[in-house]
Amino acid sequence: MEREAQKVLVSSIRRLIRAEQIPQLKRVVAKTHSADLAACFGALTIGQQLTVLRHVPTDAARGDILSELEPSILSNLIEEVPDTELSAILSEMPNDDTNYVLQVLDDDRSALLLEAMSDEHQSEATSILAYESDSAGALMVTDFLAFHQEVTAGEAVRVIQEGADDAEIVFYIYVTNEIGQLVGVTSLREVVQQPTKKALKEFMIPDVIRVNVDTDQEDVAKLVAKYNLLALPVVEGANELVGVVTVDDIIDVIRHEANEDMLRMAGAGHEQDISVYRNPWENARTRLPWLASGLLTGVVGMLVIHMWSHLLDRLILLAAFLPLLFALSRNVGLQSATIVTRAIAMGQIEFGRLGRVVLREFVVGLICGGVYGLVAGLVAASYSFYTTSSVELASVFALSVSGGVVSAMLVSTLAGTVLPLLFERWKLDPATVGGPFFASSMDVISAAIYLGMASAILG
Amino acid sequence: MEREAQKVLVSSIRRLIRAEQIPQLKRVVAKTHSADLAACFGALTIGQQLTVLRHVPTDAARGDILSELEPSILSNLIEEVPDTELSAILSEMPNDDTNYVLQVLDDDRSALLLEAMSDEHQSEATSILAYESDSAGALMVTDFLAFHQEVTAGEAVRVIQEGADDAEIVFYIYVTNEIGQLVGVTSLREVVQQPTKKALKEFMIPDVIRVNVDTDQEDVAKLVAKYNLLALPVVEGANELVGVVTVDDIIDVIRHEANEDMLRMAGAGHEQDISVYRNPWENARTRLPWLASGLLTGVVGMLVIHMWSHLLDRLILLAAFLPLLFALSRNVGLQSATIVTRAIAMGQIEFGRLGRVVLREFVVGLICGGVYGLVAGLVAASYSFYTTSSVELASVFALSVSGGVVSAMLVSTLAGTVLPLLFERWKLDPATVGGPFFASSMDVISAAIYLGMASAILG
Repeated sequence: MEREAQKVLVSSIRRLIRAEQIPQLKRVVAKTHSADLAACFGALTIGQQLTVLRHVPTDAARGDILSELEPSILSNLIEEVPDTELSAILSEMPNDDTNYVLQVLDDDRSALLLEAMSDEHQSEATSILAYESDSAGALMVTDFLAFHQEVTAGEAVRVIQEGADDAEIVFYIYVTNEIGQLVGVTSLREVVQQPTKKALKEFMIPDVIRVNVDTDQEDVAKLVAKYNLLALPVVEGANELVGVVTVDDIIDVIRHEANEDMLRMAGAGHEQDISVYRNPWENARTRLPWLASGLLTGVVGMLVIHMWSHLLDRLILLAAFLPLLFALSRNVGLQSATIVTRAIAMGQIEFGRLGRVVLREFVVGLICGGVYGLVAGLVAASYSFYTTSSVELASVFALSVSGGVVSAMLVSTLAGTVLPLLFERWKLDPATVGGPFFASSMDVISAAIYLGMASAILG
Repeated sequence: MEREAQKVLVSSIRRLIRAEQIPQLKRVVAKTHSADLAACFGALTIGQQLTVLRHVPTDAARGDILSELEPSILSNLIEEVPDTELSAILSEMPNDDTNYVLQVLDDDRSALLLEAMSDEHQSEATSILAYESDSAGALMVTDFLAFHQEVTAGEAVRVIQEGADDAEIVFYIYVTNEIGQLVGVTSLREVVQQPTKKALKEFMIPDVIRVNVDTDQEDVAKLVAKYNLLALPVVEGANELVGVVTVDDIIDVIRHEANEDMLRMAGAGHEQDISVYRNPWENARTRLPWLASGLLTGVVGMLVIHMWSHLLDRLILLAAFLPLLFALSRNVGLQSATIVTRAIAMGQIEFGRLGRVVLREFVVGLICGGVYGLVAGLVAASYSFYTTSSVELASVFALSVSGGVVSAMLVSTLAGTVLPLLFERWKLDPATVGGPFFASSMDVISAAIYLGMASAILG
C-alpha cells in the first residue's frame, strides 16, 4: 500500500471511530488486507487499535494482524486484550505465529493462555516454544502436506481436492516412509502431471535439502537463498519430518538479521529494544551502555595524548591534525571490516586461503595510506610553512604527519581485515568489528602511532 | 552445503582435473546441485572453472551455474567462454538470468550474442534489457501461467497436466481478459479443488497486488515481504500482464540491498566493485575516492583546532579530551542516524508525525549527553586536579569538558535524526547519513562546539 493510501486509511479509521460509525468501520476493516491494517496500527492509539481489532470479521483475520505487528506495538496492544479473546485468536493462528505472540507475553500470562487452548493446539504450541528462539524449530509450521511414499499421484490429488488438509503450503509435497522419516519431495504440479496410478516414490526427488529443528535461522535463510527454495522441511531425531519453514518467514529473518547487523555496527542495541515511537527514557536506557565504549577508549586516548603533552606544548599544530588522522584511519579500517564481514556473510571467504585476503588488504592499506599520507604531508607542509615561515620545521612536521597517517591507516586496514576473520573463527559475530568500539580504538591506536612517530622525528 | 562439504568438493574437483580423470569429474559434476558448484567457483582458477563448466551435462544446467555466480567471478569467466558456447547457454536460461549475464558483458559482445539468439529469445531479451536495471521489468520472468477468465478449472488443469507450458512458477495462476489485462489470480491448489466446469472468473481473487514494469526493485521487495507473496505479477501500460517477479529473486534483492546499505555506511563503494579476491590495485582505486571525505573534514578540523591554538597552548589537556569527545558525539549521532534510517526502511515512520520522532530523539540526546557529560566532567576534574593540584583550574576545566560533551552529543543526535528524514524527503538515500562523511563532520562540529565553549568558560 502506498504511503498516501495508508494515510487515507488511517484518517478514515480515526474519523469513523470518533463518529462511532461502526457499520462503516466494519466495512472498511473487512475489505482491507490484514498487512495494511497492521501497518496502520503504529499511527493509532491503543484504544483505536482495540476498536479496529474487535471489528475484524474473524479470529483468524485478527491473528493475521497480530502476527504482522512489530514487537513493540504488539506487546503494548495485547496487554489490553482480555485472556478469553486472546486465546480465541491464538487458537486460529498458525503455530509459528502463535509462538511469535507468546514470546512477547510474560511467562505467567503465556502459561495461562496455553492452558486455555485446545489440547492439540496446546501441545503444538508448547513443543514449538521448547525450541531455541532463533532455530528452525521455532520458525517452522507443523501443518504441511506429506504423504506416504506408496500413495499414488491420483490419491494425493484426491486428498488435496477434498481439502481435507489445512496445510499452508501446497506447492511442495513431502514424502515419508512408515516411520515418518522424510524420504523425498515432489510438487503439486508434478503430482497433477504424473499418471494417476504412479506411486509418489517413483517420481519424487529423493535428495531433499532439509534442516534440523535446532539449525540456526540464519543458516536456514542461507539455504533457502542459495537453493531458491519456497519452503524447507525440518526434521528431528532420526530424520523424522516434523515441520516446514516457509519462504515468507525467511524473508522476515533476512530483513531482521540485516537490521540487527546495522544496529550492531552503530552500537544502537537490539531491534526489539529500539523504536522511534518508544518512550525516550527507555530508548536512552537501551543506548547508554553502548556509548560506554566511547568513554572508555576516550579516557585511554586522553592518557596517550597527555603522555606526549611536552611535544604538543612545543608544536600545537600536531593536535590540529588529529581529526584528519582519526577520520582517515577509522574510515579505511571500517571499509576493510565491512568488506570482509559482508564477504563472510555472503559466503565468499574460503577459509583455506585467508593469507591471500589479508595480503591483498595489506596492499590496499599501503596504497590508500600512501596516497593520503602524501596529501596530508603536503597539507601539513604548506600550512606549517604558511604559519611559521620555517622550511626546516615545515619539512620535519610534514614528515611526521605523513608517516603517522601512513602507519595508522595501514594498522587500521589490517585490524579491519584480521579481526572479522578471527571473530568468525571464534564463533563471534564479525559485524561487531564494524561497531563503534573498533572505530574508537582505532582513534587511540592512531594517536599513539602518530605522536610516537612525531616524537621520534621531531626529537 | 556445509563449509566442510564444500572444501571436500573443491579439492576433489581440483584433484580430478589435475589427474585428467574426466569420467569421474563428469559424475561428480552431474550429481552436484548447480548452486553448490557455483559456490566452488571462487576457489578454482579460470581454467578449472572452464573445465567444470564444459562437463556440466546440459546447457540449461550451465545457465543455472552462471546465474548463481557473483558478478566479479562471472565477468572474468565469461571473458573466456567462446561466443557460440555462451549463446547456446543463454538460449536455455530464463530471461531474468539472461539479463543478469548480458549486463555483465560489454555492449559490443552482448549485441553480438543477442543477434545469435533465436528470434523469440532475442525479442524477450532485448525487451527486458530496455527496462531500468533496478526495476520490476528487469527482474521479472516472462514465462508464467495465465489463462483467460472464461477458461474452466478443468481446462486449466488439463493444460498443466499436458505440460504444454514451460512456466517456472505454477503455484499462482493469473487470470486475464480478452486484451491481456490482469483481472484476477488463483492458485494451482484452488484450480484442483474447484468443480471442473467452473470458470476461473467465478472463483479467482479479483484484487491482485501488482507492480508496474518500472516499479523500483526495493518497492517490489517491500510488497512481497509485507503481503507474504511467492510471486508478484508485473503489468505494463493499461494493466497488461507482461511478467512475474518470483520470491527467490526478491530474496536476492533484499540481501543485496542490505549489503549495499552496509557498504555505503562504511564508505566502501558499491557491491559490484568490491571483492576480497579482486586485484588490490583495483580495490584501492575504488576505495580511495570514498576516503576523500576524511581528508576534507580533517583539513577543516585542523583549521578549527588551530583557530583556538592560543587556548590549547595554555592548556594542552584540552587536546587530550578530543578522542573522548569525538567517540561519544560520533557514536550517539550514528545511533540516531541508524535507528531512524532503519525505521524508514522498515516503513515505521509516519511522515505526518515527524515532530514526535525528532522531539523524542532530542530527549534521548539530552539524557545520553547529560550522563556522559557528567562522567566526562568528573574524569576531567580528577585528572586535571591530579596533574595540576589546582582546584580552580580543575573546576573550570571540568565545566568546559562537561559542557562541550553535552552540547556536542545533543547536536550530533539531532543531526543524526533530522538528516535521514530530510534525505528521505529529498529522495536521497538516508543510509548515506550513517556513512563516514557524517561521522567526520560530527568530529569537526564537536571540536568547534567544545573549543568555543572552553574558550568562553576559560576566558
